[in-house]
Amino acid sequence: MAPMTERIRDFLRDRRAAGVEDGPVLVVDLDVIRDNYAKFARALPDTRVFYAVKANPEPKVLSLLAGLGSCFDTASVAEIRMALAAGATADRISFGNTIKKERDIARALELGVRLFAVDCEVEVEKIARAKAETGAEDVRVFCRILCDGAGAEWPLSRKFGCEPAMAIDVLEHAHRLGLEAYGVSFHVGSQQGNVGAWDSALASSSWIFRELAERGIFLKMVNLGGGFPTKYLKDVPAVGAYGNAIFRALSKHFGNRLPETIIEPGRGMVGNAGVIESEVVLVSQKSKAEDEVRWVYLDIGKFGGLAETMDESIRYDIRTEHDGERKVPCVLAGPTCDSADVMYEKTPYWLPVSLEIGDRVLIEGTGAYTTTYSAVAFNGLPPLATVVI
Amino acid sequence: MAPMTERIRDFLRDRRAAGVEDGPVLVVDLDVIRDNYAKFARALPDTRVFYAVKANPEPKVLSLLAGLGSCFDTASVAEIRMALAAGATADRISFGNTIKKERDIARALELGVRLFAVDCEVEVEKIARAKAETGAEDVRVFCRILCDGAGAEWPLSRKFGCEPAMAIDVLEHAHRLGLEAYGVSFHVGSQQGNVGAWDSALASSSWIFRELAERGIFLKMVNLGGGFPTKYLKDVPAVGAYGNAIFRALSKHFGNRLPETIIEPGRGMVGNAGVIESEVVLVSQKSKAEDEVRWVYLDIGKFGGLAETMDESIRYDIRTEHDGERKVPCVLAGPTCDSADVMYEKTPYWLPVSLEIGDRVLIEGTGAYTTTYSAVAFNGLPPLATVVI
Repeated sequence: MAPMTERIRDFLRDRRAAGVEDGPVLVVDLDVIRDNYAKFARALPDTRVFYAVKANPEPKVLSLLAGLGSCFDTASVAEIRMALAAGATADRISFGNTIKKERDIARALELGVRLFAVDCEVEVEKIARAKAETGAEDVRVFCRILCDGAGAEWPLSRKFGCEPAMAIDVLEHAHRLGLEAYGVSFHVGSQQGNVGAWDSALASSSWIFRELAERGIFLKMVNLGGGFPTKYLKDVPAVGAYGNAIFRALSKHFGNRLPETIIEPGRGMVGNAGVIESEVVLVSQKSKAEDEVRWVYLDIGKFGGLAETMDESIRYDIRTEHDGERKVPCVLAGPTCDSADVMYEKTPYWLPVSLEIGDRVLIEGTGAYTTTYSAVAFNGLPPLATVVI
Repeated sequence: MAPMTERIRDFLRDRRAAGVEDGPVLVVDLDVIRDNYAKFARALPDTRVFYAVKANPEPKVLSLLAGLGSCFDTASVAEIRMALAAGATADRISFGNTIKKERDIARALELGVRLFAVDCEVEVEKIARAKAETGAEDVRVFCRILCDGAGAEWPLSRKFGCEPAMAIDVLEHAHRLGLEAYGVSFHVGSQQGNVGAWDSALASSSWIFRELAERGIFLKMVNLGGGFPTKYLKDVPAVGAYGNAIFRALSKHFGNRLPETIIEPGRGMVGNAGVIESEVVLVSQKSKAEDEVRWVYLDIGKFGGLAETMDESIRYDIRTEHDGERKVPCVLAGPTCDSADVMYEKTPYWLPVSLEIGDRVLIEGTGAYTTTYSAVAFNGLPPLATVVI
């Protein structure tokens, strides 16, 4: 599964030949997404796929996935509307954000959505009130639990989820307020390289199932979250390896009474489907000293779509036309007048010594978490453009 | 100069009464900007003000400043067009970004801009070629030098500028290529709390002036950059104190042959003119333990305009309706499904214990570097709205 596909290469060649030259562009290859979807479906055949819309909400991406049978994990009412517009029915959409305004919950219910994430009792109460207000029936909630995220390249903070012991109270509270206490969710951390990371969270989940069953509340679902990686500089395990490890952990903790499961891939579904073409704007040094580091400035940076280079977390694979040649360590920075707009400095990025102003570079594996992160107009620069092919 | 003005308070009260409730909003009071401009003009009477458009490019802000006689420091061709549209003539606009595409330099020249920042010889060469291509005359360049930024809350990296010794070569190169070697610039770091920070950079500047004069090249201008702070949680020195310190440093290093000077305030011009009204979406804890920290989630976060909370650099002053009451330490987070969207956690933020879901909070000093930083559509959320009054 090469990050750079023939189709993207041909598209960029034709685009350049046509004289389109201004600004960086993300090119997304739908064939790669189709292939990724099939791999998830094969690796976890009994698991429903809820694509994390926030990873890349391009209408053509959503339409393709809706047509393939995917469900959708959404973060806002706007994302719910996008999934509906792409052809998904409301029963295939979850409102997966644990932080929701009550009026947005009501809007989601009015749009037909019936599956909601929570991680505390007050959020449950919002949903119960919105249910009463809208007259919606059969409203399901799942409670997110904390997970330590070890092994992830973009490890999660404690922002989402509660301690497993509290999840029991949260779900019991939901049951008492007339909601269906439907299941448990967790997230092992984005770009998770350890296929065993799901094991301890599944142990906690099964404990919550048992504790609630003793109180007469029978959960049905485990939401295995996202975390499936895409290939950046380092190789990552194949989706099949994740499927096997998750299935083993499920069997270990739930025996032969396996719960319904869902996954929420975002990066794993679209990350390797996209390539950003960017231009070298400047190559310079700060002094004439022999050992002075070289600065390479691109026309895209931290505020133009590469926000995940924050703290140098994600290291993208960058291709140039000089890749066979000798490489030197470079600081890689963006085009804005913001001194924080430096992507790789603590660990310099090795680039060909012959890289020049005006050269094109290809930043691979950028199909996820790029376009929507880009600043609306910082320094007067437009947000990252996308072309879906 | 209270960050919360009567006009903003009245506006927000009327807006709430009118039932406008969705999403956070930045309200900018033009009277405060008018007052700030007058303070800069008074504090540095012989210095031209080049407002840093990137801080807040709202058309009404630019028009006000153009009318008051301000010049404009721009970061892109789009910002040049905005300044022109606001009524500034091209001779009052500098292209202050040291990282420019050659075709953008040509566009700027065609629009009449004649003043450009550089920090290396290849950038000078781009300008010389664009000058030849467009036939522009009297093109001036100033070279940015590195500055250590000590004392700044948003300290600058080494991204912009070169060592002073190299600046001599860069400016001599410009002179040789038919450009006017016009001056030197530096930036002491954003939100600079030390009024003496300009001294060492002015020492370097005067040395560059002397060295070039010995080669028959006579610089005319020192660009003192920005760095003038706005009040967040801590008090900051008044603009007058900066004016005095800068004037003393200029006299010390340039004697009675003072160069032409310009300043580029951004934050100092508009920061305290803006207040963001946001809504508390959720208040929760991760477990029922007595000492468990409280999490407060707002409908604005790091990706919705408060990007400068990155690494907890800028600590905004937040007002609530419960400010007289007992405060407890809180983690303050944004509304997105991104676990990095946490604003204050390492150093918790103290907020009233009675703060509740649905309460409005006022985030003060947010007139600069907020709206344009906001993500175009992350999580389906719209960029931060602005109202200028």
